[in-house]
Amino acid sequence: MTEQRKFSHCQIVDCTIRDGGLVNNWDFSVEFVQDLYESLNEAGVEYMEVGYKNSPKLLKGAENAGPWRFLNDDFLRKVIPEKKKTKLSALVDVGRVDENDILPRSESPLDLIRVACYARDTAKAIELATLFNERGYETTINIMALSNVMDNELSEALAMISESPIDVVYIVDSYGSLDPEDIRYLVEKFRRGLKNKRLGVHTHNNMQLALANTLTAAEMGVELLDASVYGMGRAAGNCHTELLLAKLSKSKYNLRPVLGMIERYMVGLREREEWGYLIPYMITGVLDEHPRSAMAWRASPERDEYLNFYDRLTTPETFPKS
Amino acid sequence: MTEQRKFSHCQIVDCTIRDGGLVNNWDFSVEFVQDLYESLNEAGVEYMEVGYKNSPKLLKGAENAGPWRFLNDDFLRKVIPEKKKTKLSALVDVGRVDENDILPRSESPLDLIRVACYARDTAKAIELATLFNERGYETTINIMALSNVMDNELSEALAMISESPIDVVYIVDSYGSLDPEDIRYLVEKFRRGLKNKRLGVHTHNNMQLALANTLTAAEMGVELLDASVYGMGRAAGNCHTELLLAKLSKSKYNLRPVLGMIERYMVGLREREEWGYLIPYMITGVLDEHPRSAMAWRASPERDEYLNFYDRLTTPETFPKS
Repeated sequence: MTEQRKFSHCQIVDCTIRDGGLVNNWDFSVEFVQDLYESLNEAGVEYMEVGYKNSPKLLKGAENAGPWRFLNDDFLRKVIPEKKKTKLSALVDVGRVDENDILPRSESPLDLIRVACYARDTAKAIELATLFNERGYETTINIMALSNVMDNELSEALAMISESPIDVVYIVDSYGSLDPEDIRYLVEKFRRGLKNKRLGVHTHNNMQLALANTLTAAEMGVELLDASVYGMGRAAGNCHTELLLAKLSKSKYNLRPVLGMIERYMVGLREREEWGYLIPYMITGVLDEHPRSAMAWRASPERDEYLNFYDRLTTPETFPKS
Repeated sequence: MTEQRKFSHCQIVDCTIRDGGLVNNWDFSVEFVQDLYESLNEAGVEYMEVGYKNSPKLLKGAENAGPWRFLNDDFLRKVIPEKKKTKLSALVDVGRVDENDILPRSESPLDLIRVACYARDTAKAIELATLFNERGYETTINIMALSNVMDNELSEALAMISESPIDVVYIVDSYGSLDPEDIRYLVEKFRRGLKNKRLGVHTHNNMQLALANTLTAAEMGVELLDASVYGMGRAAGNCHTELLLAKLSKSKYNLRPVLGMIERYMVGLREREEWGYLIPYMITGVLDEHPRSAMAWRASPERDEYLNFYDRLTTPETFPKS
């Protein structure tokens, strides 16, 4: 069933290239990215996050990554020479971005810069986001791993953001361990702690709750909704863009172009690369842990030994978590 | 996150063999079914639905089906010679069951007989379920395809059941088109229309909402929750048993045995047989239609032509629905 009015405040931020790049080391062709941009634009999706704008100088071991790992403005302008309605976004991580890489917005094809941080790094995230804001960008602060943050630490982070000029703050379920009741709790907490801010949500699908969590947030007034086409994103992946288009039913949204993109690219890509609901990712979601141990397990010869993996994670003395 | 108290009223009915049989024509080995029974029993799952108890005389074209399609009590007693805590269930369809096939419960390994019907066949379902009740079984009436029933017809069906001796009534999302808000509406409607009845819920995963819908119903007091291991069920499949075990967190539930069953059987089976989130099933869910057109499409050479399928379903004059 669909709902034609209650989601009119929502906007979709498609993260296929940025979060999906964590799956295939950003090995997307220019044609792929161009097709995705055209499809999202036709579908009415408001934002496309086309990669990271971190600095390769600050991130070792990433030399073989595709160009969406360290976006270059000139390159991006060649890929998308004519921007249409869909705006372009990039993510930066606190500690990995060189602020000198961020040109004034008038000289960049990017519209939105999102700053990802852990709650403990909120002060630094505010500093960066404020700077990018001054350079003309829309900005957000995305607080990661909320299921592993002490409530008092989160309250303090929200109080700091509340006094800053940052416009949008994201609830990020990095481990895919939250359910709709948790989302309701967090949205209420963010609302109480943040006066006059807009909210966003980024979910992962470890427990097959990414869409339900996103819809729960949207029903509560959260405005920016992250999603990826066919769910492509790290480990269990994200809320699916095609499902969000179908469920939000805003009159400007059109499901069909994204179905075409899935047909042309995503099904074949999913046969070569792995993401989505797999038991090791479900296990880390259930245990409220970062998926890195599950990703390593899926890359090992024991990849389908679920009991072995479960036993190691639930008897941690035999398997250090990090 | 988990919740340790609010689901204490819930019981799980695992439908892997019955609904999963719709995927592989009930071609499960005896060893598979025995392993599943042991795993569910160790996991603390209350019911295992081990097949259909329809009559082959009343269902043409099913000659090649496996033995779980038309359960035989003697055969079932050989498969599971020693019943443990997990009770056994069978489903019958109105119009396809010969009531003479249902022995008194004292002579059968079955504990629960569930009668599936469309709302228009409720009178017949009540008659059958009452008869099986008199023969000693626990019984339920499962009203299918609720997203396609006129509200007045459903109200009339509930009024009839309300006056019957049937104990449990199921909300069945046959098309996988409902979301948590729809479930809330239906649970409230069933509660209003059915005095002193217990409720159950059976979901499909076309929109990746099967778990969220099931949890929503459970939070509202619905007691019997259907699920299948690794989601195996017709088309997009069902709510996953392993996820329900993880989320309900009842002290008697144990996730580990079902993870073992998935490792031993389900991953290999999923490579040979197809179910789960696939775009044609998502499309029929979005359009609130029976998945039969999508199942036929997936069996055709055009199986990955999603735009073609979408265009045909949304311009029905070119593609009759049934």
